[in-house]
Amino acid sequence: MQIDFNSDLGESFGLYSAGNDANVLPYITSANIACGFHAGDAPTMRKTVARAKALGVAVGAHPGLPDLQGFGRREMQLSMDEAYAFVVYQVGALKGFTAAAGVELRHVKPHGALYNMAARDRELATAICQAIRDVDAALILFGLANSELTRAGEALGLQVAHEVFADRSYQADGTLTRRGTLGAMIEDPEVATAQILTMLHEGRVRSQQGTWVSVRADSVCIHGDQPGAPQFARAIRQALEEQGVLLQAPCTNKP
Amino acid sequence: MQIDFNSDLGESFGLYSAGNDANVLPYITSANIACGFHAGDAPTMRKTVARAKALGVAVGAHPGLPDLQGFGRREMQLSMDEAYAFVVYQVGALKGFTAAAGVELRHVKPHGALYNMAARDRELATAICQAIRDVDAALILFGLANSELTRAGEALGLQVAHEVFADRSYQADGTLTRRGTLGAMIEDPEVATAQILTMLHEGRVRSQQGTWVSVRADSVCIHGDQPGAPQFARAIRQALEEQGVLLQAPCTNKP
Amino acid sequence: MQIDFNSDLGESFGLYSAGNDANVLPYITSANIACGFHAGDAPTMRKTVARAKALGVAVGAHPGLPDLQGFGRREMQLSMDEAYAFVVYQVGALKGFTAAAGVELRHVKPHGALYNMAARDRELATAICQAIRDVDAALILFGLANSELTRAGEALGLQVAHEVFADRSYQADGTLTRRGTLGAMIEDPEVATAQILTMLHEGRVRSQQGTWVSVRADSVCIHGDQPGAPQFARAIRQALEEQGVLLQAPCTNKP
Amino acid sequence: MQIDFNSDLGESFGLYSAGNDANVLPYITSANIACGFHAGDAPTMRKTVARAKALGVAVGAHPGLPDLQGFGRREMQLSMDEAYAFVVYQVGALKGFTAAAGVELRHVKPHGALYNMAARDRELATAICQAIRDVDAALILFGLANSELTRAGEALGLQVAHEVFADRSYQADGTLTRRGTLGAMIEDPEVATAQILTMLHEGRVRSQQGTWVSVRADSVCIHGDQPGAPQFARAIRQALEEQGVLLQAPCTNKP
Repeated sequence: MQIDFNSDLGESFGLYSAGNDANVLPYITSANIACGFHAGDAPTMRKTVARAKALGVAVGAHPGLPDLQGFGRREMQLSMDEAYAFVVYQVGALKGFTAAAGVELRHVKPHGALYNMAARDRELATAICQAIRDVDAALILFGLANSELTRAGEALGLQVAHEVFADRSYQADGTLTRRGTLGAMIEDPEVATAQILTMLHEGRVRSQQGTWVSVRADSVCIHGDQPGAPQFARAIRQALEEQGVLLQAPCTNKP
Repeated sequence: MQIDFNSDLGESFGLYSAGNDANVLPYITSANIACGFHAGDAPTMRKTVARAKALGVAVGAHPGLPDLQGFGRREMQLSMDEAYAFVVYQVGALKGFTAAAGVELRHVKPHGALYNMAARDRELATAICQAIRDVDAALILFGLANSELTRAGEALGLQVAHEVFADRSYQADGTLTRRGTLGAMIEDPEVATAQILTMLHEGRVRSQQGTWVSVRADSVCIHGDQPGAPQFARAIRQALEEQGVLLQAPCTNKP
Repeated sequence: MQIDFNSDLGESFGLYSAGNDANVLPYITSANIACGFHAGDAPTMRKTVARAKALGVAVGAHPGLPDLQGFGRREMQLSMDEAYAFVVYQVGALKGFTAAAGVELRHVKPHGALYNMAARDRELATAICQAIRDVDAALILFGLANSELTRAGEALGLQVAHEVFADRSYQADGTLTRRGTLGAMIEDPEVATAQILTMLHEGRVRSQQGTWVSVRADSVCIHGDQPGAPQFARAIRQALEEQGVLLQAPCTNKP
Repeated sequence: MQIDFNSDLGESFGLYSAGNDANVLPYITSANIACGFHAGDAPTMRKTVARAKALGVAVGAHPGLPDLQGFGRREMQLSMDEAYAFVVYQVGALKGFTAAAGVELRHVKPHGALYNMAARDRELATAICQAIRDVDAALILFGLANSELTRAGEALGLQVAHEVFADRSYQADGTLTRRGTLGAMIEDPEVATAQILTMLHEGRVRSQQGTWVSVRADSVCIHGDQPGAPQFARAIRQALEEQGVLLQAPCTNKP
């Protein structure tokens, strides 16, 4: 039994500071590093790669929409050619920094609106996955479990890590309960831990409707920018380790 | 006797079109492709790599200052950390596209104000060259012949291509005659060809003051955005070939 | 009988040139000047205001989405607070240049995706119109005839100019026939002129389905960036003038 | 005896937060609001104008260089045409928000590198002051006391507020002691208050060299982003008021 903890890092820009990287890094095994479109900039990418390397955290690219003002959270129209090229560009840029630091680039997790749009839209998901594969076929795709994004990645032969959430409840159709709905957020670390353990041991999660939904749990998303987030991550991590679950980044299936 | 013809390409942005790529590509052996800071964008980079590949033109990165509005021609203050990271980012981004296209990234030529500042400033030149080396030590640096940039590259062990100009006259100290000065521009293709041939055969150029200046001519810069530029390039190229000069991109010294 | 000819101008950015301002200005009575979000920049705005002033063309602001790469044509999610503030900002910026040039700012026409989204979405249209009214209640709103945008402007008490198209056919519900559909474009200047004259004299347009649709024609949109556009504009303008139609910008209803 | 306390506000961008506006506003009489080039964005400008209005703080524009990544602190090459247009644009944009809020725009203070370059360069200072005058001749220029910027404003007939510093020591030539030099910073509120009172009563300041330098003190710059800054501002303000100095924004000399 093993699982990965991933978090979005390196979201500062120029003099603007964002996130809580130093406090989150000790509890995670995979870092998704912003690539300068929705957040982050070149010196921040360099520094964040160095920090992840120093702690042995696996490094991944976190490409987003070209919208710094909206932090990549505003959905926007995109041609498939643009989606493909935006991902190649950003993954390539981060790969420049991992090459310079002598670290391996391990995974790619799309950000915000790009992640959400790709979870629903197979054509967009396919364009993103082709971009990842074309830059480096050994890269692991991180995507929402049971989504068009993970399906597109598998169809193209990418290694895929299915991402699940400890702090969110699920619906009968496998989607996350929409934020703002009653019961959407799970704030009790014990409940969160139990949800992850059931995913790991039984490959399923109990929906809010009471039915069971199949889910593969390869990586848990840890949010770093909310108050109490590091404590929450530490509590779940500790509980999982006490249950004998190994915390580590997904291994590359390379020969 | 051999020499390379290089030109700056891929400078369009979104709906804005710039340059004359289709007309210049047939006459050059190395393409310096803009990387999205001073010009170019991700879809344009993809398309330009494909065009260069189709014609067998060697592909290089053309990183600039983060200033689209000023086309990277406005000098700006820069820390060494920023300069290093800007070059790693842009070279990495273009390397994403060359990897996706199955082409080799061959060289890096800094753009505009970054090129000019680095020609004068050894510390900046060194930061740029470290960035190039750290991304890929086999990359060839293109820099102004007899400048701090080429000296920094050689000191760091990079393979260096010295860039010369067919359409510009030189000063006794080896610098180019400032634009706007009488005699700065060479408009006669025969005079331009003679200047390049002297550089190639004698390793020197006659300055406007009448003295001879040592110069190593590995690559000639071809401007694509001026009227008559393709014709000028074609005329010189043809004249050089008639003199038995081989036109080809610098070979990588890799084992 | 009078009508206004309007065109989008000032869309260059930095060294990038766009549009055909010099050729279009002689045939129009209202200039919609880009404000730096989707196109244009501060020096271009200054120059374009001066050109319009020199020819006696009425000056208007042409605010768009903050997306230079997509030229403001990609729809994106927008809060009402953002929409309001984006319009205040851009109209204010252009008003700085009209004040400096001693010209009156006469109208505001939203651009591209912002125009199209506001034509369908009353809440967005209202936010835009409130912004215009709050900056200067005497400004005239230019919007698609029969749209939520013009309705919102009228509901808020703005003076509204209904925009119609000479080179596009209409549907039975009053919308434009979608580009790419058979018969969407009108290329014959005589047919285009007849369509405008019927709008002016009868207040209606014949749809592609053969039914008549009510339409108020205050201003005709002239596209400057297509080949043959100035000739098309000149032909229609001349034909209308021969029919006794007065070409002039909408007058402000100010006391 | 009266003096103004000014501070730079509204420097947040998108989801990025900067400064400490809420804590600084109660101690100042003039707010310099960022205009979207080096910091700030349209919704932030709207909100900041509303906050200043609610507290009766005078509103001014704080235009900077087009460099969000460098926060407007990196010097860059600029033509006079660009400098003029950048200031017209930004002052106009903020004037859109003051008009919408029913507040008067009172002053303009250039930011960061633009402020510093204009303090040394008369031609640049003149271009900036012409822009201010052309948008609204009643605007008050805030500039470094004894600089080319204030001299240019006075030469053009602008009302000028000379800005002084309570927390910085001065050199014999009237410039500020360079940061990082011994004695550059004044950390004791009593010393700072004494320096301001001497400026007010005697029109001079004692330089680090022991000589006296003439200085006119119309406005004191209050930094909001340093720890302890609000306490420092409050202490000086209270001490000045105890000495009978009236704290208020400069009055416009309009008829």
